[in-house]
Amino acid sequence: MSYTNFPSKLLENAVAEFSKLPGIGRKTALRLVLHLLNQPKEDVHKFGSSITQLRDEIKHCSSCYNISDTEICDICANPKRDHETICVVESIRDVMSIERTQQYNGIYHVLGGIISPMDGIGPSDLQIDPLIVKANEGKMKEVILALSTTMEGDTTNFYLYKKLNKFNINITTIARGVSIGDELEYTDEITLGRSILHRTPFDQNL
Amino acid sequence: MSYTNFPSKLLENAVAEFSKLPGIGRKTALRLVLHLLNQPKEDVHKFGSSITQLRDEIKHCSSCYNISDTEICDICANPKRDHETICVVESIRDVMSIERTQQYNGIYHVLGGIISPMDGIGPSDLQIDPLIVKANEGKMKEVILALSTTMEGDTTNFYLYKKLNKFNINITTIARGVSIGDELEYTDEITLGRSILHRTPFDQNL
Ligand SMILES: [Zn+2]
Ligand SMILES: [Zn+2]
Repeated sequence: MSYTNFPSKLLENAVAEFSKLPGIGRKTALRLVLHLLNQPKEDVHKFGSSITQLRDEIKHCSSCYNISDTEICDICANPKRDHETICVVESIRDVMSIERTQQYNGIYHVLGGIISPMDGIGPSDLQIDPLIVKANEGKMKEVILALSTTMEGDTTNFYLYKKLNKFNINITTIARGVSIGDELEYTDEITLGRSILHRTPFDQNL
Repeated sequence: MSYTNFPSKLLENAVAEFSKLPGIGRKTALRLVLHLLNQPKEDVHKFGSSITQLRDEIKHCSSCYNISDTEICDICANPKRDHETICVVESIRDVMSIERTQQYNGIYHVLGGIISPMDGIGPSDLQIDPLIVKANEGKMKEVILALSTTMEGDTTNFYLYKKLNKFNINITTIARGVSIGDELEYTDEITLGRSILHRTPFDQNL
């Protein structure tokens, strides 16, 4: 689609912004923008401010790095959760996926990504050091490595295992009910719930 | 996806807003919102203001009802275009689709929808009266009915034909190279360009 076809610079600009979103081509962007144009002004302002306010005010839990509106997230602040069991995940989407299964009562640690040399992401780009600090404090009984079953996930698992192995911590991984190569967020709730219940000790030779 | 799983009200709110967009489910909305969360603040503000500014400042051409940043749109203001040939379309998306074919040098009239009794859209909800006023001024030689080849498009074509028939105007429709039931905006450029070149006199018995 040629830029010069737009009857309005403002429209062109909005379509350009929407088509920067992942998986949104220019045709879809145009459809979304024209849909919003047909909504009442206050609704469009609510839409726009919902994302700018989130971006401006977003906090991450200072303990687990989950997204939170408060200094400590609801999960970490919940005394009914098992604070000695820590589930290590890549992103807050995985926290939400696991919470939806209602099979897990421990807390989380959000890495903010996985080790991916191809993308230039190394251990220092992730929240790995704070996890080691927590392990060193001696309050962890179990660390569940719940990363995607991809090569990058395996690499990260192995790296974390080497770092955590020296502490007296039970290191487990979610059961490989999750098909090899699958991303956690696309795994159905039953499979994911089962694989967290049937988690197994981490085996570096797997 | 349960609302209560969201670790942040701000996040929940932004996802709710994005999932109001057509064709965007909650999972996709979450992915888009988390993508934006990873962008610099100023980029997110550019995104948000692109749509609110468009919504606040958008104008429609007072002659053809196309979207425009000015009182009269670039097409209507262009003296090189044939102002006696008017292509009637449903929406500005169709103007953009036809412009992309580079096969048309007349001007447009954007109805803002088509007659659809099922959706409660009647002739008075559309910009039909201004078209009749223009026809009555006697400056039109040809009106091309370029609506979608759906039942609603046929109904609208017939309604417009009855209204315009009393004037000395050549009423044509785009050639039915556009497959029956197809929406104009999903039609490829070559088909659409050909069907506007080979437009035919409107036949109410078709
Ligand atoms: Zn937390
Ligand atoms: Zn115009």
